[in-house]
Amino acid sequence: MRLHSAPKSGNGYKVRLLLGLMGEGVEVIDYNTRGGETHSPGFLGNVNPDGRVPVLELDDGTTLPESGAIMLFFAEGTPYLPGDRVERAQIFRWMFFEQYSLLLYLSRPRLWKMWEVEITEVREAQLAEIFEQGYRALGVMERHLEGREFFVGERPTVADVALYAYPRVCDEGGYELGDYPNVRAWLERVEALPGYVPPPGRA
Amino acid sequence: MRLHSAPKSGNGYKVRLLLGLMGEGVEVIDYNTRGGETHSPGFLGNVNPDGRVPVLELDDGTTLPESGAIMLFFAEGTPYLPGDRVERAQIFRWMFFEQYSLLLYLSRPRLWKMWEVEITEVREAQLAEIFEQGYRALGVMERHLEGREFFVGERPTVADVALYAYPRVCDEGGYELGDYPNVRAWLERVEALPGYVPPPGRA
Ligand SMILES: N[C@@H](CCC(=O)N[C@@H](CS)C(=O)NCC(=O)O)C(=O)O
Ligand SMILES: N[C@@H](CCC(=O)N[C@@H](CS)C(=O)NCC(=O)O)C(=O)O
Repeated sequence: MRLHSAPKSGNGYKVRLLLGLMGEGVEVIDYNTRGGETHSPGFLGNVNPDGRVPVLELDDGTTLPESGAIMLFFAEGTPYLPGDRVERAQIFRWMFFEQYSLLLYLSRPRLWKMWEVEITEVREAQLAEIFEQGYRALGVMERHLEGREFFVGERPTVADVALYAYPRVCDEGGYELGDYPNVRAWLERVEALPGYVPPPGRA
Repeated sequence: MRLHSAPKSGNGYKVRLLLGLMGEGVEVIDYNTRGGETHSPGFLGNVNPDGRVPVLELDDGTTLPESGAIMLFFAEGTPYLPGDRVERAQIFRWMFFEQYSLLLYLSRPRLWKMWEVEITEVREAQLAEIFEQGYRALGVMERHLEGREFFVGERPTVADVALYAYPRVCDEGGYELGDYPNVRAWLERVEALPGYVPPPGRA
């Protein structure tokens, strides 16, 4: 089994974090996404037609893209994905929220800074919308965490792992979590878990 | 059990389509998303802090947002979500792909047309990026469907239902599927399934 990933990939980090918390490991193959390595014909044809990492490659050669799908694959049958039908549905709910309402908005400003993308007038206007949506999503998390330790149930699940990766590094894109005390306390709770793996640095 | 939705919502339609195919129904409560009804304090506090539909309300009052989570809740234990671990993971993979790589790009131009949003210079530049990403995602679907009838395994699953909703109406936003014969044939295969429910019209 091997994980195709990239050194700075927050989505690849989600998988490494879950495996760390579960006391497991996996062989990692890193690509240079900026250099276009994940858009080569070989990568598109054999690893992921969507040109993105992470992708889990099983021992029989089956490839499984999408951080969420890889995490659910590993979490199935463990306390990170409990058996109760409603609890599972709530975990899925937060994982879809992460993909649609949070991920793009938190990752984009960080990526543009890392890649030193020129901020044209159009990008400036886009950034305003991006931060608006990003803070809106962080606000949803903040309110949900009021009186809660973790997102679903009483202990950490794969939903927490999915939601943790980008808020943890969003300051690298210019976000400030000063007004989000519940989010900050929850980030620290995740960091205190046995087996915790730190996020990829920026430099 | 009630489904909070909106008349033109493609995400609400996913749930109605799955229930139709499964021979089931659900009471629907429609909101006017454009009029801000899903951003009222009551909606945010009692239905979905993320201000979006669809949301499933269970008989005990539990609320479950996210079309994908609602579909997985209903599909669990049925042929729409098979028991095999790798097949399930591939289904999740396509559902996350739909949320992150497809949904925004296919829905946005349709929404702007429906709402007659003024296309400023910034929006014009955004539209170019949106269509580029949207066609990229449709290309991923097109290549995956080569030699396949459905997305995962030999029969329709909840992945097909999730992926169907927006490509089916993307022409309303200006997309053309002329170069995507596999996608078009698959759309027709979905439409031929017993219990099929047509998408919400634009007008
Ligand atoms: N929905 C995917 C998103 C994956 C993603 O966007 N990966 C980034 C790295 S963090 C990537 O491969 N970007 C290269 C590209 O989009 O071309 C997931 O959750 O795994
Ligand atoms: N990830 C969500 C997206 C839901 C969504 O964007 N719903 C739209 C209607 S199709 C909505 O409620 N928009 C109102 C808003 O964003 O304020 C899902 O799959 O259910």
